[in-house]
Amino acid sequence: MKQYDWSVRVYYEDTDAGGVVYYANYLKFMERARSEWLRSLGVEQDMLRQTSGVLLMVHSLTMNYLRSARFNDQLQVSVAVKVMGRAKVTFHQQITCADNLLCQGDVTIVCVDEKSGKPIGFPEELKQAFQGVLIA
Amino acid sequence: MKQYDWSVRVYYEDTDAGGVVYYANYLKFMERARSEWLRSLGVEQDMLRQTSGVLLMVHSLTMNYLRSARFNDQLQVSVAVKVMGRAKVTFHQQITCADNLLCQGDVTIVCVDEKSGKPIGFPEELKQAFQGVLIA
Amino acid sequence: MKQYDWSVRVYYEDTDAGGVVYYANYLKFMERARSEWLRSLGVEQDMLRQTSGVLLMVHSLTMNYLRSARFNDQLQVSVAVKVMGRAKVTFHQQITCADNLLCQGDVTIVCVDEKSGKPIGFPEELKQAFQGVLIA
Amino acid sequence: MKQYDWSVRVYYEDTDAGGVVYYANYLKFMERARSEWLRSLGVEQDMLRQTSGVLLMVHSLTMNYLRSARFNDQLQVSVAVKVMGRAKVTFHQQITCADNLLCQGDVTIVCVDEKSGKPIGFPEELKQAFQGVLIA
Repeated sequence: MKQYDWSVRVYYEDTDAGGVVYYANYLKFMERARSEWLRSLGVEQDMLRQTSGVLLMVHSLTMNYLRSARFNDQLQVSVAVKVMGRAKVTFHQQITCADNLLCQGDVTIVCVDEKSGKPIGFPEELKQAFQGVLIA
Repeated sequence: MKQYDWSVRVYYEDTDAGGVVYYANYLKFMERARSEWLRSLGVEQDMLRQTSGVLLMVHSLTMNYLRSARFNDQLQVSVAVKVMGRAKVTFHQQITCADNLLCQGDVTIVCVDEKSGKPIGFPEELKQAFQGVLIA
Repeated sequence: MKQYDWSVRVYYEDTDAGGVVYYANYLKFMERARSEWLRSLGVEQDMLRQTSGVLLMVHSLTMNYLRSARFNDQLQVSVAVKVMGRAKVTFHQQITCADNLLCQGDVTIVCVDEKSGKPIGFPEELKQAFQGVLIA
Repeated sequence: MKQYDWSVRVYYEDTDAGGVVYYANYLKFMERARSEWLRSLGVEQDMLRQTSGVLLMVHSLTMNYLRSARFNDQLQVSVAVKVMGRAKVTFHQQITCADNLLCQGDVTIVCVDEKSGKPIGFPEELKQAFQGVLIA
């Protein structure tokens, strides 16, 4: 399967008094993985904004929580593309710990023109990046 | 419509370099509103854990982002119940600013026995709380 | 004593797996209190930036932790001015819970010209605000 | 100089609407570096708690902010020990980006007995760890 995998450690800052990772923080891990995936392809989001004048914004998401991560756990975060449109792309991402699936979600990102604030087609380099992890 | 409304101010900590509230932070606002709603009914989650031995855990969620909140915005966060089961409840929550809908989501919470870690029916006081904001 | 007091509830997001508020998060509470204090005087930081072209940046800080706050605690956060200079001001802030001192710190803020990035004297409305909570 | 160095990338979650890393978040980076340093020596904090019954808590800190980090910056975080006592240790930590010092701070940690909540001497493995990065 074509996907990008990135690893992250759970620190105290990520947990809550329930002893587990706070539910919103898994979304941070997922975004970090998307950033590292783009970076691994030579796409820097701050450069992208300057050269193409586009912003990537979260449009919608779904999350399913199955098991909890704890302090010090080493997590794997995957990045794959499920649906790819002109100005909108849906990622499928999973977070696992020692091969146990903890949670998974679909995150839809929209490409927006920085000046007009309106949706605009993805730059070529992003299209190629999406293609590389597109679930067949 | 039967719903609980709670207000929150956007501070610097909530925003990101895009100039708007970071997408995962809206989930924090939604949880704060659920906590305040329970508290307004006399239900303290830490007491609930001690007296009933149950934990409330997020099972799944969906979010749709329409507009962005900025530093200093005064937001309104609503709490309503969409679907009510024996051990699982789905909240519908909206975040607005000056009557503009910024984002909305459904958050499903499951009631778990602290010892066994298995789903268990909600305590009576929670059932009554849900009933009070149940969307007809 | 001339000081501003503001109240904040501890939510799950603020705590860590140690069962207490994560140490860096007390700094968030302190900044929220400073924001609310300015707001109570009619000073909106986003307007200030637009009208005066100045930014308020944290220059340095000290913190002492005595007791821990827990989920659901209602905290009081104070704001007072300890030292007042032309372009630099030092706040003394305390966080208490039911009259017990949890932590206290001194936070020094510097006023910076947005264009040059250099220190610049505080606008008049800020000087008056500082004067109002200046520790004799 | 004997010190531990660890690297971290700045993500959107770390920044605020000022376009720079939020001031409290540098403390998160410093704690992550301390965790990774202990881990590199084979000391896992969750195991330490179970085997020795001790907790490491932040007692006090000072921070000086010189320059700001921005989205996508690659930061270096150092860990060194400045003062070493029986139950209290003071770390000196610096955060740099491309050899520019961004901020530095001293963080004092106290070793606490989990049951009594009182200070207790550090376990032997921690003393040896401190010794390894002690500033002469």
